[in-house]
Amino acid sequence: MAAASPNQQAPTPHVVALTGGVGGAKLALGLSRIMPPEDLRFIVNTGDDFEYLGLNICPDLDTLLYTLSGLSDESRGWGRRDETWNFMSALAALGGDAWFQLGDADLAVHVQRSHRLRLGQSKSEITAWLAQQLGLRCQVLPMSDQPVRTRLRGSDGWLDFQDYFVRQRCEPVIDAIEYVGADIAQPAPGVIDSITSKHCALILLCPSNPWLSIDPILAVPGIRAALRASTAPVVAVSPVINGKAVKGPTVKLMRELGLRPVAGTVATHYADFLDLFLVDPADVDELSPPPCRIEPAQILMRDLADRERLARTVLSACGTAITQTEPG
Amino acid sequence: MAAASPNQQAPTPHVVALTGGVGGAKLALGLSRIMPPEDLRFIVNTGDDFEYLGLNICPDLDTLLYTLSGLSDESRGWGRRDETWNFMSALAALGGDAWFQLGDADLAVHVQRSHRLRLGQSKSEITAWLAQQLGLRCQVLPMSDQPVRTRLRGSDGWLDFQDYFVRQRCEPVIDAIEYVGADIAQPAPGVIDSITSKHCALILLCPSNPWLSIDPILAVPGIRAALRASTAPVVAVSPVINGKAVKGPTVKLMRELGLRPVAGTVATHYADFLDLFLVDPADVDELSPPPCRIEPAQILMRDLADRERLARTVLSACGTAITQTEPG
Repeated sequence: MAAASPNQQAPTPHVVALTGGVGGAKLALGLSRIMPPEDLRFIVNTGDDFEYLGLNICPDLDTLLYTLSGLSDESRGWGRRDETWNFMSALAALGGDAWFQLGDADLAVHVQRSHRLRLGQSKSEITAWLAQQLGLRCQVLPMSDQPVRTRLRGSDGWLDFQDYFVRQRCEPVIDAIEYVGADIAQPAPGVIDSITSKHCALILLCPSNPWLSIDPILAVPGIRAALRASTAPVVAVSPVINGKAVKGPTVKLMRELGLRPVAGTVATHYADFLDLFLVDPADVDELSPPPCRIEPAQILMRDLADRERLARTVLSACGTAITQTEPG
Repeated sequence: MAAASPNQQAPTPHVVALTGGVGGAKLALGLSRIMPPEDLRFIVNTGDDFEYLGLNICPDLDTLLYTLSGLSDESRGWGRRDETWNFMSALAALGGDAWFQLGDADLAVHVQRSHRLRLGQSKSEITAWLAQQLGLRCQVLPMSDQPVRTRLRGSDGWLDFQDYFVRQRCEPVIDAIEYVGADIAQPAPGVIDSITSKHCALILLCPSNPWLSIDPILAVPGIRAALRASTAPVVAVSPVINGKAVKGPTVKLMRELGLRPVAGTVATHYADFLDLFLVDPADVDELSPPPCRIEPAQILMRDLADRERLARTVLSACGTAITQTEPG
């Protein structure tokens, strides 16, 4: 075994965060601002990915990349700020299939990704390249390089995720969810190692939709088992506050699936690997008996200060060895 | 043989025009405005077509489609008017390969074409669809549905057309040109029929670059022979006026290929099928002996009125049965 080169630094502890789109990306941004970003590793849902006009679209990966690099449009809640829409206008004028909005600048990412996938690069290679080009120092890992497709069953049959989420605005009543391809997918390179590494100081489940954003990740063989086996604390931030979701169809979906639409249901859902659950103070009493350690916290993130504060709360609550820094 | 249905109209005489990009499209527009556009059939160079960022780009087809539909940017000389460039800016920011400028609205055509090609549609099917969606009533035919690639040999070896034309701005000195794939390409559906039909009243070679825009068309097996065999008059408008090209590298290229950079060289180049050559009055004396009938005409097209006037001159000079109309 070769000796470590003299200028090679000892591995530092790292944080792993599992995240979906907008809600998760808020806390991801907070984390990236209060700790060394090179010690952050994001594992991102790709169950929402789809093909549109022959382009490979990865909504959650892009939301995270844009949020972390300061390119996201905060008020619209998706896509890039200072965006223009001339591609879509021209597409609509051609009578093209224009139900999913792609901004002109956003298209650069989709065209590059699609091109590189066709050239044989993997989704994780392309994601790493995009992160680097956008100036990010953290690791952004798709959950898998193989396709996994979240589908929801409504009264008229199975719906592709974007059909349900965008085209039908989450209106169909859902009675089942599946993650097509998850059973034969593999975790992307780095995913399992990041979770099981002895340098992993903390594993965070961001407040993303458990059924639509986190469960697709957990459905990839090996990831849930790695979470169970990890010696690092696993903490989740509740996506439900006082019986309501901050954004999106979480609570509506819970009702339709016959689940009590409360924070405790989420904690129970993660009970086999969860060490700590951060909930709104209003939800503490309702979690009885608690399926794991719970702590009240201000988990609603209205602005950047909220995101940084919650990120500090997460790190502090776990007593990790992660160095907290001042936002740059 | 079934009798013609009572409400089926008798075929009307039609005009076939071979064209490349900007120069040819000017006369194409003039024609489309002074005769019934449904009696116009364009056969368009696809030797400039290329793949860029995984998108199939057909510059001459798009120049013609945009020009005929009023979408082209006249002052820039290429692309669409009222165009924006946020895709390119974002692509450049990603460090992507941004040497060929694609406007945001223009992208809608490239994305649609690329998507449809991957779905198995042919270039001519897609072109017909685009023409229809853009409200055109004329026929726009690519010369072939198979790939043909114009390449030019400079001092450092063979160059792809767009590398020479756009990236290197026609600066390399060229000693040979080839049309890769032309030998095994087939004329697109409708190309040969349009030329050899007894209803073809006139075949026009637009004032496009003979070596870079018209010769690729003539290199597709069967097209040159069809021009020779056609009973309709074949007329060309000189792309060279008084020893200069209106636009582009025609004269530079002629010199480099060892050809006299005069209109007469173009007439001789087409001599095996050409019936009439329209030249600037200044060039008449130089064409001696003439390789075919020549007529002086105001062939420089500065504005729309020039384009319509030259189109009328072409039709009148051939004494065709085509009905000339007032521009709508």
